[in-house]
Amino acid sequence: MGRHFLQIPGPTNCPDEVLRAISAPTIDHRGPTFAALGTRVLEKIKPVFGTTNPVVIYPASGTGAWEAALVNTLSPGDKVLCFETGHFATLWQSMALELGLEVEMVAGDWRHGVDTDAVAAHLGADTAHEIKAVCAVHNETSTGVTSRIGDVRAAMDSVDHPALLLVDTISSLGSIDYRHDEWKVDVTVAGSQKGLMLPPGLSFNAVSDKALEAHRTAGMKRSFWDWTPILAANEKGMWPYTPATNLLYGLEVALDMLADEGLENVFARHQRWARATRAAVEAWGLEILCLDEREHSGVLTAVVMPEGHDADALRALILERFDMSLGAGLTRLAGRVFRIGHLGHFEDLSLVGTLGGVEMGLGLAGVPFTPGGVQAALAVLQED
Amino acid sequence: MGRHFLQIPGPTNCPDEVLRAISAPTIDHRGPTFAALGTRVLEKIKPVFGTTNPVVIYPASGTGAWEAALVNTLSPGDKVLCFETGHFATLWQSMALELGLEVEMVAGDWRHGVDTDAVAAHLGADTAHEIKAVCAVHNETSTGVTSRIGDVRAAMDSVDHPALLLVDTISSLGSIDYRHDEWKVDVTVAGSQKGLMLPPGLSFNAVSDKALEAHRTAGMKRSFWDWTPILAANEKGMWPYTPATNLLYGLEVALDMLADEGLENVFARHQRWARATRAAVEAWGLEILCLDEREHSGVLTAVVMPEGHDADALRALILERFDMSLGAGLTRLAGRVFRIGHLGHFEDLSLVGTLGGVEMGLGLAGVPFTPGGVQAALAVLQED
Amino acid sequence: MGRHFLQIPGPTNCPDEVLRAISAPTIDHRGPTFAALGTRVLEKIKPVFGTTNPVVIYPASGTGAWEAALVNTLSPGDKVLCFETGHFATLWQSMALELGLEVEMVAGDWRHGVDTDAVAAHLGADTAHEIKAVCAVHNETSTGVTSRIGDVRAAMDSVDHPALLLVDTISSLGSIDYRHDEWKVDVTVAGSQKGLMLPPGLSFNAVSDKALEAHRTAGMKRSFWDWTPILAANEKGMWPYTPATNLLYGLEVALDMLADEGLENVFARHQRWARATRAAVEAWGLEILCLDEREHSGVLTAVVMPEGHDADALRALILERFDMSLGAGLTRLAGRVFRIGHLGHFEDLSLVGTLGGVEMGLGLAGVPFTPGGVQAALAVLQED
Amino acid sequence: MGRHFLQIPGPTNCPDEVLRAISAPTIDHRGPTFAALGTRVLEKIKPVFGTTNPVVIYPASGTGAWEAALVNTLSPGDKVLCFETGHFATLWQSMALELGLEVEMVAGDWRHGVDTDAVAAHLGADTAHEIKAVCAVHNETSTGVTSRIGDVRAAMDSVDHPALLLVDTISSLGSIDYRHDEWKVDVTVAGSQKGLMLPPGLSFNAVSDKALEAHRTAGMKRSFWDWTPILAANEKGMWPYTPATNLLYGLEVALDMLADEGLENVFARHQRWARATRAAVEAWGLEILCLDEREHSGVLTAVVMPEGHDADALRALILERFDMSLGAGLTRLAGRVFRIGHLGHFEDLSLVGTLGGVEMGLGLAGVPFTPGGVQAALAVLQED
Repeated sequence: MGRHFLQIPGPTNCPDEVLRAISAPTIDHRGPTFAALGTRVLEKIKPVFGTTNPVVIYPASGTGAWEAALVNTLSPGDKVLCFETGHFATLWQSMALELGLEVEMVAGDWRHGVDTDAVAAHLGADTAHEIKAVCAVHNETSTGVTSRIGDVRAAMDSVDHPALLLVDTISSLGSIDYRHDEWKVDVTVAGSQKGLMLPPGLSFNAVSDKALEAHRTAGMKRSFWDWTPILAANEKGMWPYTPATNLLYGLEVALDMLADEGLENVFARHQRWARATRAAVEAWGLEILCLDEREHSGVLTAVVMPEGHDADALRALILERFDMSLGAGLTRLAGRVFRIGHLGHFEDLSLVGTLGGVEMGLGLAGVPFTPGGVQAALAVLQED
Repeated sequence: MGRHFLQIPGPTNCPDEVLRAISAPTIDHRGPTFAALGTRVLEKIKPVFGTTNPVVIYPASGTGAWEAALVNTLSPGDKVLCFETGHFATLWQSMALELGLEVEMVAGDWRHGVDTDAVAAHLGADTAHEIKAVCAVHNETSTGVTSRIGDVRAAMDSVDHPALLLVDTISSLGSIDYRHDEWKVDVTVAGSQKGLMLPPGLSFNAVSDKALEAHRTAGMKRSFWDWTPILAANEKGMWPYTPATNLLYGLEVALDMLADEGLENVFARHQRWARATRAAVEAWGLEILCLDEREHSGVLTAVVMPEGHDADALRALILERFDMSLGAGLTRLAGRVFRIGHLGHFEDLSLVGTLGGVEMGLGLAGVPFTPGGVQAALAVLQED
Repeated sequence: MGRHFLQIPGPTNCPDEVLRAISAPTIDHRGPTFAALGTRVLEKIKPVFGTTNPVVIYPASGTGAWEAALVNTLSPGDKVLCFETGHFATLWQSMALELGLEVEMVAGDWRHGVDTDAVAAHLGADTAHEIKAVCAVHNETSTGVTSRIGDVRAAMDSVDHPALLLVDTISSLGSIDYRHDEWKVDVTVAGSQKGLMLPPGLSFNAVSDKALEAHRTAGMKRSFWDWTPILAANEKGMWPYTPATNLLYGLEVALDMLADEGLENVFARHQRWARATRAAVEAWGLEILCLDEREHSGVLTAVVMPEGHDADALRALILERFDMSLGAGLTRLAGRVFRIGHLGHFEDLSLVGTLGGVEMGLGLAGVPFTPGGVQAALAVLQED
Repeated sequence: MGRHFLQIPGPTNCPDEVLRAISAPTIDHRGPTFAALGTRVLEKIKPVFGTTNPVVIYPASGTGAWEAALVNTLSPGDKVLCFETGHFATLWQSMALELGLEVEMVAGDWRHGVDTDAVAAHLGADTAHEIKAVCAVHNETSTGVTSRIGDVRAAMDSVDHPALLLVDTISSLGSIDYRHDEWKVDVTVAGSQKGLMLPPGLSFNAVSDKALEAHRTAGMKRSFWDWTPILAANEKGMWPYTPATNLLYGLEVALDMLADEGLENVFARHQRWARATRAAVEAWGLEILCLDEREHSGVLTAVVMPEGHDADALRALILERFDMSLGAGLTRLAGRVFRIGHLGHFEDLSLVGTLGGVEMGLGLAGVPFTPGGVQAALAVLQED
């Protein structure tokens, strides 16, 4: 009874308008009405990436778009430089290995973003230019740490290395400031189910001219993910195979909502929620996983459990008692952190409710903490 | 951007399941599929009223069902006994006068429920039995005071007066314990848009055998509201004119949800939210309008503004800043109270958000109050 | 399995867009967002009636709006002139009698519209002006006959009689050409569930200045239906009691669709379907109930069954076998006619399917007829 | 205005119940409610394939599932045997080549299914067992020809060849009789947007034990499509990455509908529509593309245009004039055939409307034909 609080860091709460839009009857994906829709969304999606270049839209969930980024730009045995910023960064490493690439992995503590000094050091040492791509996760959904991609680009430029820059923005796009063109990102990977406020099922590759050039000679095998036939069909607002029509209906609604609000305002709204959440966590006397003030995520906050207390037991209690889903700690953080999502279609008062649920849960679970987190969050939300 | 917080005391938030149900295609209201639906909802609605007698369902909003209660049971010039428990009680008085009835009105201070001593006194004095009906509002939506209908019935019985008992449960049905049969209510008036968690557009008359007997000789003119053809058509699950088919789809879903949860649990849930809300108001140092501990409403809490502060300005600020609708003070309470709805499809965490929005609004509006109301509510919700 | 064919003459098929619109969350009917919605629909509804005067919108189904027309303009014992054009005309007679009016009924054969000569004769004979209102049904849903209201008005004017003209357009509004102002209609009664392509639950009174003047002195008792408080609240886009918010969402969508198409086109579309349907019926060698070429309805066609064959058995067979609902013959036409609805959100190809279902049903039921009706309809639809 | 007739051979018309289901709020794909949903759909999907083995569900459209079938079972340079039965068969050939496989293609005329003699001949000649897989399209969406997969299996067995049998059922599953286990198919490829009556966005691999064994040693690179982690996560009703939650809601509804109707009935229904459609085409004097009586498709009928007449001009006219989408002739059939889809959520009367639209279109386009096709279809639908 009552509305579920979906406060994982994605999939996020979808606006009613989006959910109603995706329930419209499916249309002929070869007809003129679809072509007009396709043309509109392919254009409206660009500003969200901060690009004027093409954005490829896949009828597949986000993980597929990472595979697409790799198979479209690289050749078997190519080396990529990865950074162990968290769970999802390691997943991309696994994927690259499975697909036959070589991975140079920079170790990390899962509490910081991409180490830009390491970027410069590794690329600077690679005088033979064996590293063909740098793979970074913009916002690590598993840790609540946002890497500074502009600084990654600067580090790459500082050593004048020609590697491609591939960036995962699955949990940041449409929520945290991001600039595909300005930061000279080559492939930006994204999904529908976070800041774009849609159900899962669409994913994206924004591609630079340099990426398109690499694509021409990239030797990895590909068919479904191949940019070339998609970009060709996109010229007429279509796809070479059946697109996910109903999600595209919702995408247009979501893009219109973001444009109406203004991306600046969207980003500011998420930062404000993040500040309020951190104020609550600090008032509780709990530790935030992210250690660098410049890297706090706008879309989620990962909270470290006091020693001897199980984050998953807390989450289960909160789900049972207050019908709220929080994010789990993943792999090496399992049981040690819980994650509060504050992104997508969300609002101040639901954040208050979310933090209230956490605070009551902490109390009921017998976790040592200082009450007053919600009150601290109210102060931020009221004044800010 | 974000979900609106609809915290007026009705219309209430509707479950997604109900909203989706009412968007199903309309069907032939003379066909067998409809007849089966009609038969089901006419049966499933009864326990919510606490009755085994018929419930008439109108394709009209709640005010119409009050008119129906009067025109079906009374004759022109009949006298009815009313109680000034708040705005809606005075509306029924106006309606009775407009329809040509005589009204004996017991004055009240809008901070108490029906005065049961007055019931006994007025009826006891009416030895000629000129009073044909006692009209009471179970839950005064304008004040947050719940009259004790069982005690009203006891008072009527104590003087052995034959008047009908007509009760408005528009804002209480499906949220606050109510017993049409046990309390020997003759006509219970209700609407769809509160505890039944539907959009507005349906209304109800639960009718006792005594009411049906009065109906046979009642002299007021009626056609649309006439029980007789409706009850006849209801035998086959139909209506004598076009029913509000799509709302009936939603009604079945809502009734199933209430039955699944169990009405006892539904009532307890609302009382718990009311306790938490009062804890917040008391922590703020503000005054609750309802003055009798036995009469606090489970579905809304009316809060008195400190002298010199305008409740409507506060509500406007909260709407503008936090996108939450609160109930206004009505007529003689205009500007002096605001009302927090906590009924319908609702949940602990949204109550926390609601109270957080009020607390921040009080701060921003410069109303003198003590912070900490949300924290007090958390304590109630956590322990209770 | 499959989509039901709802080919009764109302409720009609609703556009998906309308159904999705009514499933949006209910909002505060006292807030600014609602006020803006109310103001818009109150304005957008006017052209559909062909009026620049106010239109009262009730949160009640269509029958209620007829009651409203009577109680707002007349006094107890007033005489109204009615015409027995079919089932619904007799229902309004019953209603008038129930409400305490006197009825002068002009008999009819249920195969013609209002007899304009009789209008002139009855009113001409009423030199004392005892007849206070002429009640006509624009489109008789039970017979498929459309009365010529402009000619009714001319007949009234020809004898210079001051009676009000009250017209039921429940099954014609938004489908058949109608002109409230030009024809000097005083109250036009309508409902949501036919040409307006909504589920049932809203009804309408368009009111002339003369009706408003009559209203001021009309002595019938009224409260829920009273125009005065509604028109006053409408000034701000609101209602004096809870409106049927979600249906108003759908109303705006439907009104926008009608305006986008253009009412001229809407009317022409229905006439064309009616012509195709009549071509089919004629090809089958069956009789059309309507006997006057000037009065064929654009929204439904009533077909007379050959002697010895039961229309209801045919309808049951078609429902069972082809999942299509057709309209029954009502009261004195029961079993003798069936009615094919071709109104609302509808299209050529579904009309072809509808007629195909009837043709197959006739064959399976053993009704004597000539095959080829669908083929005849195709010819009309193709050429026209 | 009016409902669009979507009569392409997929995406198909979706039931309202399915569309409403996919508009429910997205839930946590790691939580217990999702796990229960996942477990249910993974079980309910099996009978539709005629299998008791696992079915892998991808959050991707159908083309992806073909890629999955190849990369999960084969190694680079493996040879596959393909049959040029139509456009989609050639697409799978292209895909195999793009992915680095070798293709032995049996030429065809696009008017017949897989040549079972050729199956035996080619495999019989392959004594070295270089052919690792036979790739067949069950129902060629581009031609309306259904290959007899049971006979293909028999031919394979007749020469005792160990190749895997991979079958595309994208446009047949849930509409045409299909038996994964009985026919010893190794991978069955399917999509959501045809007989499963869902929007596009889900696709499927039903896998035999033999396919799973091949999978263990298959050398092609894969990550997103890899069965192993999916099957492991499916044990708990989950997926290794974000599934397309909302489409899974709809899938459950659609599977329940198919089960309620009974697959036998579903198949019979489609065959009956196909017979009625062919009766119409024959009455028109037009040619059906499929030349083998045993291979007529139950889900679509491809019609050959008379010489000198352009099928695309006809389709454009029908879309413009009657708002119906028909399937185009693809690649070598472009302009020469049009395809009538009669699958998914469909019904007799809409088939009549569909054929009526084609017949009127033929007339308006000046195509030489004999009227009476609709009438011929009525005879089939009435008697059958």
